[in-house]
Amino acid sequence: MIDLRSDTVTKPTQAMRLAGFDAEVGDDVFEEDPTVRQLEERAAEMFGKEAALYVTSGTQGNQAAVLTHCNPGEEIIMEANAHLFLYEGATMSALAGVQPRTIQGERGAMSPDDVEAAIRKDDIHFPETSLICLENTHNKAGGAILPWDNMKAIHEIGQRYNIPVHLDGARIFNASVATGISVKEYASLTDTVQFCLSKGLGAPVGSILVGPKSFIKRARKWRKRLGGGMRQAGVIAAPGLVALNEMVDRLEEDHEHAKNLAESVNSISGLEVEGKVETNIVLINVKETGMDAEAFLAKLKEQGVLAVPFGPYTIRMVTNKEVSAEDLPEVKKQLEKCVQA
Amino acid sequence: MIDLRSDTVTKPTQAMRLAGFDAEVGDDVFEEDPTVRQLEERAAEMFGKEAALYVTSGTQGNQAAVLTHCNPGEEIIMEANAHLFLYEGATMSALAGVQPRTIQGERGAMSPDDVEAAIRKDDIHFPETSLICLENTHNKAGGAILPWDNMKAIHEIGQRYNIPVHLDGARIFNASVATGISVKEYASLTDTVQFCLSKGLGAPVGSILVGPKSFIKRARKWRKRLGGGMRQAGVIAAPGLVALNEMVDRLEEDHEHAKNLAESVNSISGLEVEGKVETNIVLINVKETGMDAEAFLAKLKEQGVLAVPFGPYTIRMVTNKEVSAEDLPEVKKQLEKCVQA
Amino acid sequence: MIDLRSDTVTKPTQAMRLAGFDAEVGDDVFEEDPTVRQLEERAAEMFGKEAALYVTSGTQGNQAAVLTHCNPGEEIIMEANAHLFLYEGATMSALAGVQPRTIQGERGAMSPDDVEAAIRKDDIHFPETSLICLENTHNKAGGAILPWDNMKAIHEIGQRYNIPVHLDGARIFNASVATGISVKEYASLTDTVQFCLSKGLGAPVGSILVGPKSFIKRARKWRKRLGGGMRQAGVIAAPGLVALNEMVDRLEEDHEHAKNLAESVNSISGLEVEGKVETNIVLINVKETGMDAEAFLAKLKEQGVLAVPFGPYTIRMVTNKEVSAEDLPEVKKQLEKCVQA
Amino acid sequence: MIDLRSDTVTKPTQAMRLAGFDAEVGDDVFEEDPTVRQLEERAAEMFGKEAALYVTSGTQGNQAAVLTHCNPGEEIIMEANAHLFLYEGATMSALAGVQPRTIQGERGAMSPDDVEAAIRKDDIHFPETSLICLENTHNKAGGAILPWDNMKAIHEIGQRYNIPVHLDGARIFNASVATGISVKEYASLTDTVQFCLSKGLGAPVGSILVGPKSFIKRARKWRKRLGGGMRQAGVIAAPGLVALNEMVDRLEEDHEHAKNLAESVNSISGLEVEGKVETNIVLINVKETGMDAEAFLAKLKEQGVLAVPFGPYTIRMVTNKEVSAEDLPEVKKQLEKCVQA
Repeated sequence: MIDLRSDTVTKPTQAMRLAGFDAEVGDDVFEEDPTVRQLEERAAEMFGKEAALYVTSGTQGNQAAVLTHCNPGEEIIMEANAHLFLYEGATMSALAGVQPRTIQGERGAMSPDDVEAAIRKDDIHFPETSLICLENTHNKAGGAILPWDNMKAIHEIGQRYNIPVHLDGARIFNASVATGISVKEYASLTDTVQFCLSKGLGAPVGSILVGPKSFIKRARKWRKRLGGGMRQAGVIAAPGLVALNEMVDRLEEDHEHAKNLAESVNSISGLEVEGKVETNIVLINVKETGMDAEAFLAKLKEQGVLAVPFGPYTIRMVTNKEVSAEDLPEVKKQLEKCVQA
Repeated sequence: MIDLRSDTVTKPTQAMRLAGFDAEVGDDVFEEDPTVRQLEERAAEMFGKEAALYVTSGTQGNQAAVLTHCNPGEEIIMEANAHLFLYEGATMSALAGVQPRTIQGERGAMSPDDVEAAIRKDDIHFPETSLICLENTHNKAGGAILPWDNMKAIHEIGQRYNIPVHLDGARIFNASVATGISVKEYASLTDTVQFCLSKGLGAPVGSILVGPKSFIKRARKWRKRLGGGMRQAGVIAAPGLVALNEMVDRLEEDHEHAKNLAESVNSISGLEVEGKVETNIVLINVKETGMDAEAFLAKLKEQGVLAVPFGPYTIRMVTNKEVSAEDLPEVKKQLEKCVQA
Repeated sequence: MIDLRSDTVTKPTQAMRLAGFDAEVGDDVFEEDPTVRQLEERAAEMFGKEAALYVTSGTQGNQAAVLTHCNPGEEIIMEANAHLFLYEGATMSALAGVQPRTIQGERGAMSPDDVEAAIRKDDIHFPETSLICLENTHNKAGGAILPWDNMKAIHEIGQRYNIPVHLDGARIFNASVATGISVKEYASLTDTVQFCLSKGLGAPVGSILVGPKSFIKRARKWRKRLGGGMRQAGVIAAPGLVALNEMVDRLEEDHEHAKNLAESVNSISGLEVEGKVETNIVLINVKETGMDAEAFLAKLKEQGVLAVPFGPYTIRMVTNKEVSAEDLPEVKKQLEKCVQA
Repeated sequence: MIDLRSDTVTKPTQAMRLAGFDAEVGDDVFEEDPTVRQLEERAAEMFGKEAALYVTSGTQGNQAAVLTHCNPGEEIIMEANAHLFLYEGATMSALAGVQPRTIQGERGAMSPDDVEAAIRKDDIHFPETSLICLENTHNKAGGAILPWDNMKAIHEIGQRYNIPVHLDGARIFNASVATGISVKEYASLTDTVQFCLSKGLGAPVGSILVGPKSFIKRARKWRKRLGGGMRQAGVIAAPGLVALNEMVDRLEEDHEHAKNLAESVNSISGLEVEGKVETNIVLINVKETGMDAEAFLAKLKEQGVLAVPFGPYTIRMVTNKEVSAEDLPEVKKQLEKCVQA
């Protein structure tokens, strides 16, 4: 099987497994796991923030951020197809009691004017706007990179209105590798960032939330309430450190594979890439084949290639560490076969 | 002052005051207030539902409905400018833990296709869609009436997917009087309805939630948790009964006044009515005057006319019982004066 | 029927009805109802607090206080049989996300040492203690009056630990009339107070929350979220003003009746008053009659006297405005008949 | 340092590290991690339940259980010193909106009569009782074992009233090893159980929730909302399997050490064991030394022994895998030195 469903399917490298095996550990609830501390310090440093918190998933990182930034009855401005809104089980409302205020963006980027207009005035009928959330790269927009100037303009609005900005940076390293803008620079345009160790970077488990020290202290308590306080977590933090230290550059490979794949797709009559391919995600429209996404995917699976539905006639392919350059011609071949069928 | 800010500013009639004065009362927490019971029975009958619950506001009626229909982590489909979303302090998220899924409509009416597409599939990442909320007439869309066929199509979708439909009918009587479709007919396209006694109908306090008996029983308990369990509430239920029995027809007058007012507005160069005027709400665009909404309203207030801002360059006027036919020429005159200034 | 179930069954006086009939009103959501403002100002003044908020019930007043004082994940210290804990549908947890920390008291009074010991240390496992709640008089303890020194000691603890104290003073006027300590003095030992207009004072609807101005401003928004923002609420605020201005002294009568009733009860073999009778509540143990509370109450009801169960073998009688001195011998007679049966 | 603070400080064995290194993994959000599935199947089988869910902590297991069993506004009956109540940051209220109803037990065991009396009747003022929670062994009661007959009686009450019983079995294997009653037998008296792999069993990370299949399916979604959905979690599930398969019997050693330690303590004048020592926890009263718990612990730490405060004059020691038989005389010696100081 060639698995292009997500970069979350990546398996730990031998170096990661060894690092886990050898990890020095302690009880992280007592903040005594040296490997977790090392990972958190390394992450804070890379992102230019005071402190960091290791969490078990991107969802946990985002939700701990929401719980720490917001109180019930407040509102978060986010793009209409943000992961936080579409894919996190309404947790921000269920657990944090906050309402999403969604804005339709262009390739995941909200217009700064729209953001400013969506900020609530002081009125007894209105929730208070207490957070702006960005997502870079933007999953649902096909791995789109938020333009630097767009992030900058929104950050300035946030500062002007005294509203913090959180970055769902699950794939911020993809943006960084593609643009050459460091993650520290990106982080300078936000108050807090969540990023994943377990996607393109290949770690088995975990994400990290970075931000000011006092913020992370409070987020740590919310992580405990979410059940994310672990004991000898060094065994999974160690592979995370390998991911941060050794795996960032390899994302370039995923990006090249994605571009290669996109060319193949566009060469097949009946298939069409939706939007631009900027990083490791390729959205493919299959409508012309006469099949819907589910039918197309079922056929593709029979032929040994896995992807996921991303709309009635859209499928998503994510290049990742488990897919080599040699696999790409095979993917193209199977796509062609599917279309001919 | 001529007060066109809202139909909520209407004061009780002499008949209402007398009814309150004479009301037979009891302790409604024990369900022993005969006037409240009479009001609830009358409301249930008018809307063709099994049972009704007297609440202290439209917000309380809507939120009791949400708390009863939904569990935390679920999602409600509603129009992007629904009162529930814009003007209720994010309460559905704060207190009920549910996430709004907003759809941009046409004059407050969501496309049935959009509604169907927004219903969540069964997936571990997704909230469950547990309610569809309609608003008729639609406040933010300028008192727009939801087309019967639109409501019918959405109701059918709800039934097909086994998702209940709640109607925020704060001004459903305005829709009914304008179209000649009875509130019972409208209610037949929804599972539950909230409507206000205190807007155009002129009662001092209260709204009513109608629905199935078992639903109302559970909503009654949520009303208690919201602090809406009152004691000798007959003193305000009695004016509510007068509102239901004697004040519905008078809405026609408000509608005529609104049309009259709209003509005046369109006759003044620099002002323009936004959209159609179907009921008792007139939205006026003031951009051409060179003033924004706040500035225009400040000037208008100095001249004895009150309205509210409804956008950067939009003001809302709501005709109501306190504004007589004789007031309308005066309103026109003051609008003209404002524009000339 | 002689109704001793609660002082909530009291009906408005003629003066109250007239006040409601004549009330000057406005839209209280715009804070323009002069009668509501007058009531709130009068209440603030009587309790020596900066501001007041009219709410529709004691539960709404208490819950608005909890929502304003606390954030989710925090803890409130209260007596094990507090109304807030026993009779408010777990609302503090359901809507405010806070956990009750209950302490078994003596006649409703918690030992100050126990209160201090229950305050949480700073630890990642612990909720933060963010409120201490007192109840005076204490309903479940049979209308018991919290001793002044007890309140004072707990207030001092609150100040020392920087934890606010809220008084559920649903029946604080009963305490005041019985002890001669003014409600202002009682209120000086707390940050916020909720008291009811609709119990012994006889108003048809409503309670009041008093406290600092900034607190009341935020509580007003929570009241809106709870659906307690009313329109021409002057029609029920006016009777509330009558209650405050004219009905306080009459509580003495209820207290005398309660003492009289207690004597009668203790004179009947098989019945026994539980605890002391300090105000208008009499708890009666019926175990010796061979009946449980439900059975005894059913029989009593057949004979024209109403009370409520308050434990497996305990019934509660509350003297109130609807029960005259002439009714008391009749109650005694029917109790005797019940026991003989 | 001899670390007796908790059995959570135990470090993974070489076998566990190897198992993690070698673990076959997949993406567990897609339910494709074979090691996690194996662990869940093994756990379900051991506890005689249909299904199991791997979670990152005991708190996450308990809270996922609460979120799945209960709705907001409901009440859970639990012992007054339950871990769920004391040490989980008020999460059941903060995230699930439920209220704890605590009952003072004897060595952690609630009287069945008290449990039955605490079940709420159907009344508009009352929360619904929707769960009974037991804890075995009981941490705060010093590792006390809930008597079988006590659990049985409470389980029967639960069945009679149709209220599920959840067991916080963080240390259920300690109870099982001490009594010879299998965990399956214990589980037969409850609907759901949470137990820890990371305490005496020595796994680095994780707990497991077992219960009916439909329950676990819903709990899996709540785990996702809590951020506990992990990717290649096999790397920590594999050590968990070692814990389950190879580490249960070793608890006997901890128990012997605890008894040995208790004898030492009781032989030192000024120290006294509180209650019985049934498993691996020893509570020591230090009041006679003239020091409070904090002071005593500080001194003890200087001398190389770690424990935690468990009351103003109580300290807790937990024997665990990191403490060998040879360490015990050293602990005794240092305790003696502390007392003499």
